[in-house]
Amino acid sequence: MIHPAELIERKRNGEELPGDEIAELILGYARGEIPDYQLAAFCMAVYFRGMTAAETYALTDAMIRSGRTLDLGGALGRKVVDKHSTGGVGDKTTIAVGPIVAACGVPVGKMSGRGLGHTGGTLDKLESIPGLSVDLSVDDFVAQVREVGLAIVGQTDDLVPADKQLYGLRDVTATVDILPLIASSIMSKKIAGGADAIVLDVKVGDGAFMKTLEDARALAQAMLELGEQAGREVVCLLTDMDQPLGAAVGNALEIAEALDTVRGEGPPDFTELVLDACARLLALSDLGIDEAEGRRRAEDAVSGGSALELYERWIRAQGGDPDPEALPQAPVVLPVTAPRAGTVTRLGAVAVGVAALHLGAGRRTKGDAIDHAVGVVCRAKRGARVGAGDVLAEVHARDEASGAEAVAAVLAAYELGDEAPREHGILLDVVA
Amino acid sequence: MIHPAELIERKRNGEELPGDEIAELILGYARGEIPDYQLAAFCMAVYFRGMTAAETYALTDAMIRSGRTLDLGGALGRKVVDKHSTGGVGDKTTIAVGPIVAACGVPVGKMSGRGLGHTGGTLDKLESIPGLSVDLSVDDFVAQVREVGLAIVGQTDDLVPADKQLYGLRDVTATVDILPLIASSIMSKKIAGGADAIVLDVKVGDGAFMKTLEDARALAQAMLELGEQAGREVVCLLTDMDQPLGAAVGNALEIAEALDTVRGEGPPDFTELVLDACARLLALSDLGIDEAEGRRRAEDAVSGGSALELYERWIRAQGGDPDPEALPQAPVVLPVTAPRAGTVTRLGAVAVGVAALHLGAGRRTKGDAIDHAVGVVCRAKRGARVGAGDVLAEVHARDEASGAEAVAAVLAAYELGDEAPREHGILLDVVA
Repeated sequence: MIHPAELIERKRNGEELPGDEIAELILGYARGEIPDYQLAAFCMAVYFRGMTAAETYALTDAMIRSGRTLDLGGALGRKVVDKHSTGGVGDKTTIAVGPIVAACGVPVGKMSGRGLGHTGGTLDKLESIPGLSVDLSVDDFVAQVREVGLAIVGQTDDLVPADKQLYGLRDVTATVDILPLIASSIMSKKIAGGADAIVLDVKVGDGAFMKTLEDARALAQAMLELGEQAGREVVCLLTDMDQPLGAAVGNALEIAEALDTVRGEGPPDFTELVLDACARLLALSDLGIDEAEGRRRAEDAVSGGSALELYERWIRAQGGDPDPEALPQAPVVLPVTAPRAGTVTRLGAVAVGVAALHLGAGRRTKGDAIDHAVGVVCRAKRGARVGAGDVLAEVHARDEASGAEAVAAVLAAYELGDEAPREHGILLDVVA
Repeated sequence: MIHPAELIERKRNGEELPGDEIAELILGYARGEIPDYQLAAFCMAVYFRGMTAAETYALTDAMIRSGRTLDLGGALGRKVVDKHSTGGVGDKTTIAVGPIVAACGVPVGKMSGRGLGHTGGTLDKLESIPGLSVDLSVDDFVAQVREVGLAIVGQTDDLVPADKQLYGLRDVTATVDILPLIASSIMSKKIAGGADAIVLDVKVGDGAFMKTLEDARALAQAMLELGEQAGREVVCLLTDMDQPLGAAVGNALEIAEALDTVRGEGPPDFTELVLDACARLLALSDLGIDEAEGRRRAEDAVSGGSALELYERWIRAQGGDPDPEALPQAPVVLPVTAPRAGTVTRLGAVAVGVAALHLGAGRRTKGDAIDHAVGVVCRAKRGARVGAGDVLAEVHARDEASGAEAVAAVLAAYELGDEAPREHGILLDVVA
């Protein structure tokens, strides 16, 4: 039996801990035998001392062992691929990637978590579709993946319960932004969920956990190693989160944009990220094709309409109405106009995210209700040239007062200059 | 209202926190409104980031405000002096200093805490005296100080309750050995207890929290500053804890040795520390004398018998039998003999303390019962020349088996060499 206080002290003093002792700590915590306060002190010690690759793997493995695991691949008799994003402002990638990849003949079964954020998570976005349910039993989930090719549902409580518990604790003890803890939280869920190959979208910049490319590379490397040790293939895309992804920020607005993208009418940066992620997922699948061929098939699924068809079947299978006209609409839509002519040199992701949060698009604390209709649509992105009075963005609000506040906040998120900013694509780097 | 997670994050990031926010954290914790896990993360962040003098004072002040305070000086119409030790192996200083200072006409009213340790605390040592009670009401405590000149009792629960709570938490989260937290814990209790002037005995070495003179000086300086800010006079003695203090380690054995010292027959190192502490306390008192005169009066009280007389009155006032013959005696006494001739070059304080703990002299966890009779008497201390077979120490045990184990442990605590170790007195430095 470990002595938790002594284990915390050794981590605090910079020692590397044996894997079996880390496992006892996590599994004892999951069983309710080791109290919150000892894990809180432990996480804070990890903030300062870090964890070696071996320690991080032991942590991840213990998290997985804290609950049940899913063998989706075994149930389907197929190699299973999965995609995960570290989260950012306007990130609706999964909702567009899912139908495109499934339309190419690769089944996608995804369990998402809920959690806090400027705007809701993938589940909240999906729930803005009238009638749609994300609460499927594991059996119904597997059946839908088999029959439709795609299901996105809420994570069951018995999958990696230690992560749920630990994440809740980290959230209130200033121990969220710790690389090995982020890596093990993400990878434990992907591995327990049964994915054989995983495309990870690591967001970098103002609106992401990882503020610099260097930090993002380190996180990607840690997750890659965890995947390898667990026998999973992992590819990490490092993508730009200095400005919101695509144009829409807000739940129903993002669904509409994801649907536009599935039909080939999405914003260029978001379309590029979606097609790139699809190509990599298809190349990792059991289709036996390379990335270039994957990209071609993804583009064909979009242009040929099979992706849209799959989207509609998928949404209907989960009880939703796939018609974009059925999405809730905000009663007040206000323009944000450019005070001068110039080029957009900066569009702050966090500022836009916070504006959407204040409109009601996200949760400040667990249990907050979400207003699915509200949000922001950024018409002009970094590098766009605008004239004085041109529309930079649209605010979709519940009422005039909250709308006016958001207009001011979004305007403040824009920086207009005379020189064009340095251009770069959405994909900053790949770690594989 | 503060947001505790955000406060923890700022400390974690190395910011200096405003005093009022620290106060809200501590007082909210004391009221049960802020949970253990947030304080645990906070304390671990303090381990790595430290606290400024202003932060440490705010912490100390909030601890004091968490409960009632005592005005012993006001009740007696006298300036009140107090003495506190950071704790070490064989530390029975208070029990000898109290009667000597009181015999010189300076009232001593001391509240002690219990707590864990190799051997018991001052209260546990006193309780080895048959009949003696340390549970006095505040009124009886004040009355006894007024009438007898001396009372040593258990700390009431409503004096600095936040410290009790926080210390319990630190003990199980590897956050005990953190300088500003140690300083505020000690000084909050001394200030709330009403002392106008305080002599602090900061132990240095193997058997103490502070392993180096440098760390001990830093702790002394922090406590001095806290005292100054609260308008109290503070003198810190930095004293040697590389070997046990005096000869006796164990509750009744230490009472006997304290009594020997009060009568002028104590071991030289312990006698020196006691007389030095008495001189400084008398110089800080309202007698209006200097240290040299204080030392003279302390020596006179010992040699003239007034200190012994006061000791006896004190013990009787608390219901105890002052006769040393009445102390419990261990059934088994075993010698520890020198395996070779030589000079004692080292006598490990921790090793002797742990041997006493295993004999039953201390508590491993709260609620453990203490065996008052058992312990170790170190006849040969550092620098002593011994012949092969000479008695180095005596083990006082409950039975042969535990005694034999302790003999081996104590023998291992001794290092015998051919060259005499560098000599130094017990007093290493003074910070005032």
